[in-house]
Amino acid sequence: MSADDFIVTPWHVEGDIDYDKLIKQFGTEKISSELLERIKKITGEDHFMLRRGIFFSHRELTRILDEYEKGNKFFLYTGRGPSGHTHIGHLVPWMFAKWLQDKFDVNMYFQLTDDEKFYSKPNLTLEETKKFAYENALDFIALGFNPEKTKIIINTKNIKTLYPIAAEVAKKINFSNTKATFGFTNETNIGMIFYTSLQSAPCFIEDKPVLIPLGVDQDPHFRLTRDIAPKIGKQKPALIHNIMIPSLEGPGGKMSASDEKGTIYTTDSPSEVKNKINKHAFSGGQPDIEQHRKLGGNPDIDVSYQYLRIFFEPDDAKLKIIHEDYKSGKLLSGELKAILIEKINSFLAIHQENRKKAKNQIEQFLFEDK
Amino acid sequence: MSADDFIVTPWHVEGDIDYDKLIKQFGTEKISSELLERIKKITGEDHFMLRRGIFFSHRELTRILDEYEKGNKFFLYTGRGPSGHTHIGHLVPWMFAKWLQDKFDVNMYFQLTDDEKFYSKPNLTLEETKKFAYENALDFIALGFNPEKTKIIINTKNIKTLYPIAAEVAKKINFSNTKATFGFTNETNIGMIFYTSLQSAPCFIEDKPVLIPLGVDQDPHFRLTRDIAPKIGKQKPALIHNIMIPSLEGPGGKMSASDEKGTIYTTDSPSEVKNKINKHAFSGGQPDIEQHRKLGGNPDIDVSYQYLRIFFEPDDAKLKIIHEDYKSGKLLSGELKAILIEKINSFLAIHQENRKKAKNQIEQFLFEDK
Repeated sequence: MSADDFIVTPWHVEGDIDYDKLIKQFGTEKISSELLERIKKITGEDHFMLRRGIFFSHRELTRILDEYEKGNKFFLYTGRGPSGHTHIGHLVPWMFAKWLQDKFDVNMYFQLTDDEKFYSKPNLTLEETKKFAYENALDFIALGFNPEKTKIIINTKNIKTLYPIAAEVAKKINFSNTKATFGFTNETNIGMIFYTSLQSAPCFIEDKPVLIPLGVDQDPHFRLTRDIAPKIGKQKPALIHNIMIPSLEGPGGKMSASDEKGTIYTTDSPSEVKNKINKHAFSGGQPDIEQHRKLGGNPDIDVSYQYLRIFFEPDDAKLKIIHEDYKSGKLLSGELKAILIEKINSFLAIHQENRKKAKNQIEQFLFEDK
Repeated sequence: MSADDFIVTPWHVEGDIDYDKLIKQFGTEKISSELLERIKKITGEDHFMLRRGIFFSHRELTRILDEYEKGNKFFLYTGRGPSGHTHIGHLVPWMFAKWLQDKFDVNMYFQLTDDEKFYSKPNLTLEETKKFAYENALDFIALGFNPEKTKIIINTKNIKTLYPIAAEVAKKINFSNTKATFGFTNETNIGMIFYTSLQSAPCFIEDKPVLIPLGVDQDPHFRLTRDIAPKIGKQKPALIHNIMIPSLEGPGGKMSASDEKGTIYTTDSPSEVKNKINKHAFSGGQPDIEQHRKLGGNPDIDVSYQYLRIFFEPDDAKLKIIHEDYKSGKLLSGELKAILIEKINSFLAIHQENRKKAKNQIEQFLFEDK
């Protein structure tokens, strides 16, 4: 791989991603300043994840807004592959989805793909991925979604609803399509080959347009769905993409639930968070204090700064001070880490309380097959 | 295709099948006279479909009998792809399965693969295949299966039970395997590619050995299942194969539910049966009566004679007389057809009565997901 090479697929992210290049590669649209203004006008708010380009790209978000302004509501759909406990990277699209639900007052479907993770991870059993699906559902509920308008789909549990829709999609996709889209080979198992049609299914669960906030690595699934939709008489799903959340150990990939060192789980204790960040968070600082004071740090590659920017410091003024102080050398790497640790632990203290309460709420969130 | 070439796959049967060659090609075992004797000894009866080689081949039937004699019961499983109304060719393995259920007093699962026929037939909708599934179920019930021990599975209806089992199988099958087994190509749709794992699933629905009576064209599915079974800690399914039932229009294929002229449906009226046989049943007779009287007919290629042999005349003595009289020229083709028409219409008169009654019984036969 040369310096500016990178790989982004639903099952593998590698390299230093150039998001402008990725937009061209995937054929999506950059979120323009006009579109930002339009969202701000409709919602009355300027979400920091939009403003900061954490959500940077889309497909047909403008159509969703056109319809909305005509009085035609859409619904939201996102999901998670339950290969382990939820980590803070997962919360990015979910938090944003919650904001969208609040602002547009729309239905939300959350898909937990226990089958996908069983197919794609040689060592995971279906019992394990199903157990993680329930654990992940608690984190999702803990974010405060409207229980009247939010349904959680677990693939093996809700397959009776999903399968007939997936079948309509599957009939229109051949092996060549999956090779071209996902890089599948003759050695790929047939569960994986079929699976994309199940990730498509929730797009058509209501007879309304759908908007999907999601990590850009999941875009290939819906590129296929968008090709198929008109062939089965349905509307194409619209997407809004977030960047990949870096691993604690630095850029060049994404945070992964199966890489324990590089990952902060929502179930981590305050001391675990502290240790992980102090030990593993990739620093943009200089090798020693003297040099740092003299040369300053590089916030662009500093993971602690990036986590503040992406998720934990929504206040632009405060973030700006941190940026300037770190760049000038006034703020040391250890101090920057301390800010992040405090932010994460405050967040997790509340989140973990809500997560406990979610155990009593989960039943009302679970989608029931008819 | 040269003269002795033939093709036998679950979705395509063509040519004049040499069953001894097919046994070698598929790697199955011929049902030996010793095995016939053993079955007769256990069941106390000599079923004409065994005696006449309609069921001609097996995989590990001996293991099933060994276990049975040790007191370990097996269960039965067969099925049907609901692409149209039931025709009399379908009834062959079902009638035999009913006999097996009666003699061994075992559970029976009948799978209706509405999804498969949707995937494999470009013009059929899932609503249509599901409708045919219910129609076909009536024919199955009409044959008199034990309602206490018989469950009908409809794939889209019972997917919640089937899918987790299918997933275990699917994880162990790759695209190469399906290419080698079914001749799939890059253009095959991903529903078809995944589907075989759903046909495997009922093999593992009980924790007992399974015996599958089935048309030999379905063997490839279970060849794959037998490869996978030990990898998922399960017993290999045992099989007993029947020959392909020829179309009315003659040898070189099998009767097909989508070829109306060549097919007698269980829903046909007496006059439809009469017309179809008189008009379309391939004859082994001579071009005119004079030559027929002189040279005699060929029962081996005469479809009417074959239907009597395969299904409608269980009495060997009566069949022998028909065979001799036709061969000698004493029995004319029209007369042979008249015998068959009478036999089919007598059978269908009772069957259609039972089929009506089945509408009130169907609920107790339908498998319910937990």
